[in-house]
Amino acid sequence: MTAVYYEGGGRFSLGTAQPQAPGEGEVRIDVAYCGVCGTDLHIAHGAMDQRVRPPQVIGHEMSGVIAEIGAGVDGFRMGDPIVVRPLDARAETPADKGYGHVSRGLKFLGIDTPGAFQRSWTVPAFTLHHLPASVDLRLAALVEPLAVACHDVRRAELHAGESALVIGAGPIGLLVALAARAKGARVIVSEVNPARLAFAADLGLETIDPGVDVVGRVTEMTDGAGADVVFEVSGAPAAALAMTQAASIRGRVVVVAIYPDPQPVRLFDLFWKELEVRGARVYEPEDYERAIEVVASGALPLERLISRVEPLERLPEVFKELSAGTADIKVLVDCRA
Amino acid sequence: MTAVYYEGGGRFSLGTAQPQAPGEGEVRIDVAYCGVCGTDLHIAHGAMDQRVRPPQVIGHEMSGVIAEIGAGVDGFRMGDPIVVRPLDARAETPADKGYGHVSRGLKFLGIDTPGAFQRSWTVPAFTLHHLPASVDLRLAALVEPLAVACHDVRRAELHAGESALVIGAGPIGLLVALAARAKGARVIVSEVNPARLAFAADLGLETIDPGVDVVGRVTEMTDGAGADVVFEVSGAPAAALAMTQAASIRGRVVVVAIYPDPQPVRLFDLFWKELEVRGARVYEPEDYERAIEVVASGALPLERLISRVEPLERLPEVFKELSAGTADIKVLVDCRA
Repeated sequence: MTAVYYEGGGRFSLGTAQPQAPGEGEVRIDVAYCGVCGTDLHIAHGAMDQRVRPPQVIGHEMSGVIAEIGAGVDGFRMGDPIVVRPLDARAETPADKGYGHVSRGLKFLGIDTPGAFQRSWTVPAFTLHHLPASVDLRLAALVEPLAVACHDVRRAELHAGESALVIGAGPIGLLVALAARAKGARVIVSEVNPARLAFAADLGLETIDPGVDVVGRVTEMTDGAGADVVFEVSGAPAAALAMTQAASIRGRVVVVAIYPDPQPVRLFDLFWKELEVRGARVYEPEDYERAIEVVASGALPLERLISRVEPLERLPEVFKELSAGTADIKVLVDCRA
Repeated sequence: MTAVYYEGGGRFSLGTAQPQAPGEGEVRIDVAYCGVCGTDLHIAHGAMDQRVRPPQVIGHEMSGVIAEIGAGVDGFRMGDPIVVRPLDARAETPADKGYGHVSRGLKFLGIDTPGAFQRSWTVPAFTLHHLPASVDLRLAALVEPLAVACHDVRRAELHAGESALVIGAGPIGLLVALAARAKGARVIVSEVNPARLAFAADLGLETIDPGVDVVGRVTEMTDGAGADVVFEVSGAPAAALAMTQAASIRGRVVVVAIYPDPQPVRLFDLFWKELEVRGARVYEPEDYERAIEVVASGALPLERLISRVEPLERLPEVFKELSAGTADIKVLVDCRA
């Protein structure tokens, strides 16, 4: 069967793999679709060569159906549509305080272990979430990034009627904005890339044009109060400074972006306005359940985030294209070859 | 009657003032004791000349008794022992979201308006809190800084059995440490000044010696978990970097210190461990009630924090001494001349 391997040093190759029979507590999945994530692009840039062990299949934003069931697995039947929550927290210790999803020994399937850019994927059954039979498996491949957004919104404790500023309108920023709007919040999006901003506006989101003073504009749009919640999804140093300025008194700032190095932050704003700056990483099981509900409900225009669907064979080329820069929001790979 | 005036440019003078008859909704207080606060020292260094209007009496960490009652004031009688919560939030607007204590138009009595370093002080009655008749008015002058500490501990949502690291053992840091210990937490204090650290150890607090790697030591002391709560009370750039490193998974970091300029912070730690970094400023009424309870209970060794009690006449000299540097923890001024 077809599989795409990361070869290290930013190179991918098309190859084959043998379907792996599920061991005790495992299932084998026929992968339907798998999205290309920002993390996959980091890997493609060689930035995670210390975690990935080439040649390795990567990929984790997937949907599929149960193809084979190992011993001791209950609650799943052949053909069941599922998504995988790609976290293995079996190495959790008391020092992790019950937060398996951010535990020290956490393994991320598709990074620390083989992933879903292949026809067939064998995983522990505890990673599975059932999908309603009616769900479009293309849209279900968005459950993983949508669960990130649901987790971010939950970490923000965002309420209906509050205002939220989303800084950065890549795939996660857009999903955060849509999930925040679905919560009944007023959502304002700031993004420096005009094409991405136009896309956000086209989704009906309020936007702040590049070049406009974000803090001043948000303050104006909120009658001087500032945003109740700020989601920092851009990773830009200017955003790390603006995020506390744009927040209201007792506002919550959720840091979704990854800043590898210490970053100047206006700690005075934290003190003066009694802000809370909260980190948010991946998701917990309830975020997956919520994301599945949202996908199934059809309430969000998720279809529009799928820029194109490519066959698995083209994935090495797709990584080259995305690395060079495209206008794509989300590229899905059809693994049913 | 005697009053001490801040003259601007870091100078103080001894003078006199007329007791001011209370207007409607006001009371006149015979001030008993008033502590010298770090903020008063900032004023003494000329750092707040844009807020203080010289010649002005400052001071706000006080205790006293009701001496005269204005029209429309209920619930107080002549001679009642009281403390003043020196916040005037009457300019609050909806944009302040109900958080008067950090509202934009907040006036701080003793900074934005005349203060308590005088024999008699006239204030709005809504600033008053009753004291139990049995309370020592010297200890009651510590209610204001202790309320800051109670607010910080409440912002941390610190629970019994949790571990707390306090970075900085000045008067507020020590009060935070004692208030955290009173909550049933295990408290570890880090401080670079050996005399202050020795004082903290003498209060029975666990300490980390200067020169020791704070993050490594806290990690070791907590069996690898890190501190559930970190209170950053030092204002040191190194502490702004260490505060997130020393925190456990889902730990809370409370920023009590004032950093005037943007400060490098390890935002990666926020993301990776899902930390919450919370600002804390002054107090709310319930923090005052809690601080009064604690003072009245005698549960904390507050007496030991009072380094000396000086007559009001000596206050200009005391500011010079404190500015030059002393080993004092808290200096009280006896205003009953």
